[in-house]
Amino acid sequence: MQIVQQQICFGGRQIRYQHDSKVLDCSMQFSVFLPPQAELGPVPAVYWLSGLTCSDENFSSKAGAQRVAAELGLALIIPDTSPRGEGVADDENAAYDLGLGAGFYVNATQAPWQQHYQMYDYVLSELPNLVEAELPLNGKRAISGHSMGGHGALVLALRNPERFVSVSAFSPISNPSNCPWGHKALGAYLGNDRQAWAQYDASLLLKEHGCPLPILVEQGESDNFLNEQLKPEVLAQAAKQADANFTLRMQPGYDHSYYFIATFIEDHLRFHAEHLG
Amino acid sequence: MQIVQQQICFGGRQIRYQHDSKVLDCSMQFSVFLPPQAELGPVPAVYWLSGLTCSDENFSSKAGAQRVAAELGLALIIPDTSPRGEGVADDENAAYDLGLGAGFYVNATQAPWQQHYQMYDYVLSELPNLVEAELPLNGKRAISGHSMGGHGALVLALRNPERFVSVSAFSPISNPSNCPWGHKALGAYLGNDRQAWAQYDASLLLKEHGCPLPILVEQGESDNFLNEQLKPEVLAQAAKQADANFTLRMQPGYDHSYYFIATFIEDHLRFHAEHLG
Repeated sequence: MQIVQQQICFGGRQIRYQHDSKVLDCSMQFSVFLPPQAELGPVPAVYWLSGLTCSDENFSSKAGAQRVAAELGLALIIPDTSPRGEGVADDENAAYDLGLGAGFYVNATQAPWQQHYQMYDYVLSELPNLVEAELPLNGKRAISGHSMGGHGALVLALRNPERFVSVSAFSPISNPSNCPWGHKALGAYLGNDRQAWAQYDASLLLKEHGCPLPILVEQGESDNFLNEQLKPEVLAQAAKQADANFTLRMQPGYDHSYYFIATFIEDHLRFHAEHLG
Repeated sequence: MQIVQQQICFGGRQIRYQHDSKVLDCSMQFSVFLPPQAELGPVPAVYWLSGLTCSDENFSSKAGAQRVAAELGLALIIPDTSPRGEGVADDENAAYDLGLGAGFYVNATQAPWQQHYQMYDYVLSELPNLVEAELPLNGKRAISGHSMGGHGALVLALRNPERFVSVSAFSPISNPSNCPWGHKALGAYLGNDRQAWAQYDASLLLKEHGCPLPILVEQGESDNFLNEQLKPEVLAQAAKQADANFTLRMQPGYDHSYYFIATFIEDHLRFHAEHLG
């Protein structure tokens, strides 16, 4: 785990690391924000999973999250969105919604993806193990993300509630079994087995297993992807059936962009900070 | 003046416009943030001039300024950093510090630059006239900028104090007559006439004419360009000789990046809001 870049920001440290990932079988970069409080002792962490086409840099540079994280004493852990590098398979047309930049936080079982596309295990275990061993983190974790990353955050938390204290999402792909992005990606990475897809579908997971964690979902009403790809109403229905601690906030006028995330990231970090203690 | 893109952000509107600039003799884009207060009546404006390689999008997406502007009721007016388009001259090697993305906020007098590179007049007059005619602005203006844009902001305010209520800068090129970036750009755009250069050198202008406006300058101590290109100490010395209302804040550990700007933009907007009333 080597420092690639480091900047002071709101009195804390914004750091980009490179490391060799065993799980992904390639070299990876990720970003971390360490708040000023981390100089004095271990701090809790909010994991942020980014959306299609993003790397760790989008959230780092555009969300304005460091200000609030510095105030609240939260570390931010920001992985990339897929394995990377020359030997890593990509969509044959370099589509934005499959392959590089589009790992969907699953463990792929199908060729040519399965060698490197193991983002679920990477984000769930390898990355936290690494940063908790190397950085001043106290092991308390919350998780959030945007779009594909909102899907990832929800799935990781719903399947592993003991690993997190709270989960939130911006414009998540809430029911990937039933939308074009999900059909394409889950079909490619997991094959046609719908049972396998269900393990990566937040709405199906929530309906079947419930969730002991508080869930906060933010959704712009002018989001171009809302009806076809995101379907938060399916997630809300599942939450109701499971009697989950679930809040969906619909925001009039807001779209799918980082201007939307920047506006509401403070609320999400305060939500997580409450539960991180 | 046509809307190219529009997003809701912190309850206000982040808008990208396109228009045909007479002064620059080309089509230009610029960005505006209108705070929620602009729905009720005209508001004051902070002009932001960006640095080398930037367009209007860098500050819009990375500085996190909209949150504070929305709170304070400030519009943000964010021009591009040079004329643009196929017919516009560029450095023969497409260098980052001359030509496209590097207009230096001067009125060029030399070939091949003088047809389009009239950024001083564009930012001083054409753009304010346009936006004040078309948008809910009350005509009160402050100005700020970063690096090359900090130089531009200082020069525009020092030469036209009646047009602004306050000026600030992040890591400005404070004495371009005496640094490599300035030698290259001023030499190309203005020729070898040092008298012409002096009209675009904040330190020389301040020393000779003084300044009735309050000036706030922010500078990171770990900025790689500090000693060779920026020279805030020359500006500070000129301010002292001119008995100007001048504050230079040196920030240990901070570099030249938007992480630095994001950290301190709130202070600058509050400084300008005080004077904009």
